[in-house]
Amino acid sequence: MESSTLVPVSQFSFLPPKPHNRTRMKRRNFFTTIQCNKMYVPGFGEASPEAKAAKHLHNFFTYIAVRIVNAQLESYNREAHAELMEFLERHSLNDGNKFCADLMRESPRHKTLALRILEVRSAYCKNDFEWDNLKRLASKMVDDHNTRLMRDYVLEVSHEES
Amino acid sequence: MESSTLVPVSQFSFLPPKPHNRTRMKRRNFFTTIQCNKMYVPGFGEASPEAKAAKHLHNFFTYIAVRIVNAQLESYNREAHAELMEFLERHSLNDGNKFCADLMRESPRHKTLALRILEVRSAYCKNDFEWDNLKRLASKMVDDHNTRLMRDYVLEVSHEES
Repeated sequence: MESSTLVPVSQFSFLPPKPHNRTRMKRRNFFTTIQCNKMYVPGFGEASPEAKAAKHLHNFFTYIAVRIVNAQLESYNREAHAELMEFLERHSLNDGNKFCADLMRESPRHKTLALRILEVRSAYCKNDFEWDNLKRLASKMVDDHNTRLMRDYVLEVSHEES
Repeated sequence: MESSTLVPVSQFSFLPPKPHNRTRMKRRNFFTTIQCNKMYVPGFGEASPEAKAAKHLHNFFTYIAVRIVNAQLESYNREAHAELMEFLERHSLNDGNKFCADLMRESPRHKTLALRILEVRSAYCKNDFEWDNLKRLASKMVDDHNTRLMRDYVLEVSHEES
C-alpha cells in the first residue's frame, strides 16, 4: 500500500522532445517532471479541486459567520437576534452569497446585519479558522477510515469462513 | 469594517478569578486571552468547524480518488473501467466510506478497485492536494465576493435613487 506504486496517467502522455533543440528539451523536462509528480484529476475543466473545495468552504464560512453573529446578538441585541432568526427560517444558507444579498435588501436594519456577517466571514477565514488543523484532521481521518474499512472487511470475511 | 471592532461573546463570559490564588489567576488570564482572540462559534458541540470541514473534504477526496482511478483504468484496463462505471451508476458517492465498503463487498475484482481508491485518496490528501492554495483561494474568494456584494448593492440603490 505504498503511494509510490501509483502510476500517474500523465506519464503516458509524455512525448520526448526533438533532440536538436536542447533549451526546449530542458524546459519540457522541467515541466514534465512537475506534472508527473501529481496524479491526473479529470473533470474539473479550467477550475481545480482546490477551487471547488474553496467554494464549498466559502459557503461554510458564511454559515459559521451567521452562527457567530446570531450568538453575539442573542446576548446583547434581542430584537436583531429575533429578526435574523425569522429571516433564517425563510431563506436557505446553502448559497452564502445569495443569503447575504437577500439580507442586505430586506430592510436597513437587515443590511447592517448583512454587513456584519460579511465582516465576520472574512475575519473568520483569515484569522480564526485553523488551516493547519484542517489538514491534520483530514489526513488523520483518511488513515483512520482506511484502516477501519479494511479491518471491518477482514473481520467479516474471516467470520464467514469460520 | 475592521475585524478588531468585533466583540467575541466569550469576553462576556469571563469571570474574574479569586484574588487569593495568584498562580491560578495567572493561568486563567493566559487561557482567557487565547480564547478571547477567537470568535465563539456555537452549535458544534464537541466537534469543531475544522472537524466538520475535514469530514466534507474526506468525502471530496474519495470523489477525487474515484475520478483519478477511473481515468487511469480508462487508459489501461477497459474491463475494470466499465465495472467501476457500472457500479457508480448504482451507488452514490455522497458517503465516501459507504461507497468504498460496498465496492469491497461487490466481488474480488471490485475489492481490488476499492483498495486502490483507498490508497489514492490517502496519497491525494497527503501529497497532491494543495492546502496552501486552498487557503489562498478561500481568502481571495471571501474578499472578492464581499466587495462584489457591496458594490452591487450600492449600484442598485444609486440607480433607484436617480
